[in-house]
Amino acid sequence: MDNRCFRPFSHYTCSLMNQTSTTAEHARTAMTTRRGDIQYWSRTIIPTTREAPSDAEVPSHVLLSRAGFIRKLAAGMYDLMPMSWRVLEKIMRIVREELNAIGSSELLLPALHPMEIYEATGRAEAYGNDLFRLTDRHNRECALGPTHEEVITEMMKGSVTSYKQLPVTLYQIQTKFRDEPRPRAGLLRGREFIMKDAYSFHLTVEGKGGLNETYDDMYQAYSNIFRRCGLDFTPVEAEAGPIGGSASHEFMVNADTGEDKVLRCPETGYAANVEKCEIGERAWSFDRGTSAGLEKVHTPNMPGIEGVAEHLGATAKTMLKTIVFETKDGDGYVLAVVRGDHEVNEGKVRDVVGHPIAMADEKKAKAEGFAIGYVSPRAINGKNATLVIDPDAAQGLIDWATGSDEMDHHVKHFNWQREMGDVLNDSSRVKVADIRNAEAGDPSPRAKGVALVEQRGIEVGHIFKLGAKYSSAMDFSVLDREQKRQTVIMGCYGIGVTRTMAACVEMSHDDAGIIWPVAVAPYHVLIVLMKPDNDEHVRIATELASSLADAGVDVLIDDRIERPGVKFKDADLIGIPARITIGDKALEAGGVEFKLRSDEGKGDVVPHADVVSHVLAMFEN
Amino acid sequence: MDNRCFRPFSHYTCSLMNQTSTTAEHARTAMTTRRGDIQYWSRTIIPTTREAPSDAEVPSHVLLSRAGFIRKLAAGMYDLMPMSWRVLEKIMRIVREELNAIGSSELLLPALHPMEIYEATGRAEAYGNDLFRLTDRHNRECALGPTHEEVITEMMKGSVTSYKQLPVTLYQIQTKFRDEPRPRAGLLRGREFIMKDAYSFHLTVEGKGGLNETYDDMYQAYSNIFRRCGLDFTPVEAEAGPIGGSASHEFMVNADTGEDKVLRCPETGYAANVEKCEIGERAWSFDRGTSAGLEKVHTPNMPGIEGVAEHLGATAKTMLKTIVFETKDGDGYVLAVVRGDHEVNEGKVRDVVGHPIAMADEKKAKAEGFAIGYVSPRAINGKNATLVIDPDAAQGLIDWATGSDEMDHHVKHFNWQREMGDVLNDSSRVKVADIRNAEAGDPSPRAKGVALVEQRGIEVGHIFKLGAKYSSAMDFSVLDREQKRQTVIMGCYGIGVTRTMAACVEMSHDDAGIIWPVAVAPYHVLIVLMKPDNDEHVRIATELASSLADAGVDVLIDDRIERPGVKFKDADLIGIPARITIGDKALEAGGVEFKLRSDEGKGDVVPHADVVSHVLAMFEN
Repeated sequence: MDNRCFRPFSHYTCSLMNQTSTTAEHARTAMTTRRGDIQYWSRTIIPTTREAPSDAEVPSHVLLSRAGFIRKLAAGMYDLMPMSWRVLEKIMRIVREELNAIGSSELLLPALHPMEIYEATGRAEAYGNDLFRLTDRHNRECALGPTHEEVITEMMKGSVTSYKQLPVTLYQIQTKFRDEPRPRAGLLRGREFIMKDAYSFHLTVEGKGGLNETYDDMYQAYSNIFRRCGLDFTPVEAEAGPIGGSASHEFMVNADTGEDKVLRCPETGYAANVEKCEIGERAWSFDRGTSAGLEKVHTPNMPGIEGVAEHLGATAKTMLKTIVFETKDGDGYVLAVVRGDHEVNEGKVRDVVGHPIAMADEKKAKAEGFAIGYVSPRAINGKNATLVIDPDAAQGLIDWATGSDEMDHHVKHFNWQREMGDVLNDSSRVKVADIRNAEAGDPSPRAKGVALVEQRGIEVGHIFKLGAKYSSAMDFSVLDREQKRQTVIMGCYGIGVTRTMAACVEMSHDDAGIIWPVAVAPYHVLIVLMKPDNDEHVRIATELASSLADAGVDVLIDDRIERPGVKFKDADLIGIPARITIGDKALEAGGVEFKLRSDEGKGDVVPHADVVSHVLAMFEN
Repeated sequence: MDNRCFRPFSHYTCSLMNQTSTTAEHARTAMTTRRGDIQYWSRTIIPTTREAPSDAEVPSHVLLSRAGFIRKLAAGMYDLMPMSWRVLEKIMRIVREELNAIGSSELLLPALHPMEIYEATGRAEAYGNDLFRLTDRHNRECALGPTHEEVITEMMKGSVTSYKQLPVTLYQIQTKFRDEPRPRAGLLRGREFIMKDAYSFHLTVEGKGGLNETYDDMYQAYSNIFRRCGLDFTPVEAEAGPIGGSASHEFMVNADTGEDKVLRCPETGYAANVEKCEIGERAWSFDRGTSAGLEKVHTPNMPGIEGVAEHLGATAKTMLKTIVFETKDGDGYVLAVVRGDHEVNEGKVRDVVGHPIAMADEKKAKAEGFAIGYVSPRAINGKNATLVIDPDAAQGLIDWATGSDEMDHHVKHFNWQREMGDVLNDSSRVKVADIRNAEAGDPSPRAKGVALVEQRGIEVGHIFKLGAKYSSAMDFSVLDREQKRQTVIMGCYGIGVTRTMAACVEMSHDDAGIIWPVAVAPYHVLIVLMKPDNDEHVRIATELASSLADAGVDVLIDDRIERPGVKFKDADLIGIPARITIGDKALEAGGVEFKLRSDEGKGDVVPHADVVSHVLAMFEN
């Protein structure tokens, strides 16, 4: 499924496609029956500024600050000013409509958690310093909730006793707290932020009422939500959950400034994050190889693989990199070999060997005879180890350089067949498989002959099959139809609400300011009064605003006593989708000036009577 | 103004009276154009229980727990379950509509505050242990916001530079944190709770755009809000702010279980809390008095005034109690004399003497010659002191007992004129004035011959004229029209949102459970399926629910496989205003059973076609 095509302003037609009639109906009702709001600039607070704060680098941070939407109170903590609140309210309304439509119920759990709640899952340690901790007046330890798996599992455990009460899906929209080591990029990575977190509870994974059914509903609801918000986004496969398979998806807003890398097959729309992305079939062979003899070279204190390669007269592409893992449930090792310019993907290695692994403990591995930093594939010999080789490294034709299995030394002219011998044919000890992170240009796993392309994204949503992870740890089970105890199956589903707002700006802006998607714009129309002290102009503005509000349009009237230049600059900065200017020139020409924020130029004169239909047309495109 | 008359279920007619057309229109729109929700009991979570938690004492705590609306996570921290969230959403919608209607803008400020923000106002000390404090990973001190005067003043100071940007009123609905020493009564006194806090900023107190104008608008908006929520409430005058006069009002929900005492004039509707309540004119005179001679009695270690009185053969009503205050801005003293059974009101004493006072430091006062604990009005002699006497103590006819101005001794037969002499006529040193807390039975200050009555209340709202308290401390000023710096004037306005929900229950319940006011009921109608596995019954329920939802009614369908007895008990417990039962008996009689929660009995059979009009009638009453 490919969702890349959705552009700002196109959400309304889009939202009527591909979705249940309930949802569509909700959306239409919200638009047509609600009376729009009218606000005067002078009566609220929109503190626009010329300069952005010195720490602002990404566009959303710069523009939301300059446009008076956010103000920093402390690192990673922002005042969400009235204009922000209106955007957030619209995003939250869309979220609620779509989640209610798939039968979820909203609730609100405490933000302060007693620390005991984390005992069974051990997550207090997992969070480490990211968890804000405090001690209350009675000396009891608490944490500020970064998320609510434990709290909701505890609540459900105390509330649900029978299979009859399941399945159920619950969600909340709440301020969350994470003590990020380096809060940055304004709302994109804050220490206090608004999140929608949902949790579902089931008896089974498959079938009616099972986890998969709700997961699929959530996938669709998330697609509806981000489409209705006017976002250009891609749902991507993410690191698999404990249930395995494609058990996790991230929803990425496409933006060049995004901090996440996404790989996509332009033919099929398959997309995944770097950690998860599969790579299509690649030819490999150990046949032939260099005839030059193996040559040992002294390579002490070399700074990284590039330096070593240069010293050896090789390149990273002709180096073999061998990473040593230890198996978690035994005393064996796994050697993962990739080309020097590639990155080993631990999840893929784990899937190939079929059991949990971890980076080898250096001291222990050295004692075992691994010259960590200088390991070659030959290190498999005489050890309880498996060798897993990426196809791009399993190429006989290349004149490889690699470690010499001796500290401070590498070898040149490594010949796979000559150096390894018969062990290469022992499929119980040596496997060739995709074990590295994908890159742009790699073959698509879904279409032959098509190369993956790279795009940047901002993660705004993440859905996840938890399985029994929390319910097992916290001992949450119910009696099934046969009166047998059964551990509850869970899913969890998050949306970064403040982050979604920032992502809108990252995706949709120009040098002059923000260009809000219609569906989440704080107001739909900005009426600029050239002469706010002219009674006739004010009368026309008030009448227009009133007709627009009757049609469900939200209107902001710039009634400030300011020069027109200041007002137009601010109009572009705050990014209301449509601007109506009331001034003598247009009035003499028989109307008002109408301009879309996304259009260049000065706008057209539109007769008063046609203004409402002009504005409503904006919702159709 | 008297708001006592508003009863549950009467809010819709009420809300159309006494308010601006904008507000009324909003209210009507919300009711008539919104499609109602339909929910199935089996798809959400309403964990009703027979037993309340052992710490639950007040009705709202017991019933909200038993009805599955709240669940305790830790002391003073509650899971707000889906049914609660629906009530809160309705309360918040009403709050937003009324505050927006008077031109306020919503925003959201951080819950975590850097501790520096409290430096200028010194409130970190004032809050003491009530403030949740924590240290972040970079060792910076933070607090969890109990309220936001400092944060919003700081934000406004950074955003507003010109008089042209004022006045402005901002509000947020947010989770607040206070580390109550003894959290109790469920949502009535929690450590984490939802509050609406609003702040207004002005150039002046009086006139257009001044503090008083917004304060009056808020008073009206608060009255509308609580009336629309279906609450029986009384706005009462509270302790005066720094501006003086009637600068603070509390909104009290009338409930016998309330922890606040309110005094009210049944004739005029004047109401005030005990600290603030004025007392009507009382006759007084020092004329005549006992002819028996003053008699000193040894009274060591007597436990309280009752004990002393008994020992002296007097009663608390014939004792004079003299409290020693010191003036804050000088080295003078104020002696406040009330009858032994009355309580001195420090605010009233301060108003009478016209300058700030505090309880005298015992050591210092003793050194000055005051026999603390045994002081009589005669102690004024030879000291830099003022004597203020409550009218009930200024009665010559009573044979008074009082202190002897010597440790461990009292006197009997105190005669005002004989003991005090000419100083009584020195109006610069002796004043007779209302200086005690009011009590039920005291004369009304507003209607002659009418006695004050006492009622209990739950404070759900508080509006306050702050004046320049925070803006002075934090140096927040703007340039006025003449380019002169002027300190900004502020008001603040709070509503306890979760507490309002609990107050609804305190006010409106019976032995069987909650009786929700229609406007804030989680659902308006509960459809009980006697046979949830009967297709015909289910079809009728679905059709009825759909017609009701089309009319804007929220419907909950009890589709659980449970005995009818369990369902009816739960129906009464959760308190949905109307119950429709679908069962064979009523169907044979040509309809369904309809019953209001507030009515006794079994309900009436209503033909299917009349159900919607029956339900809508509920909104009219």
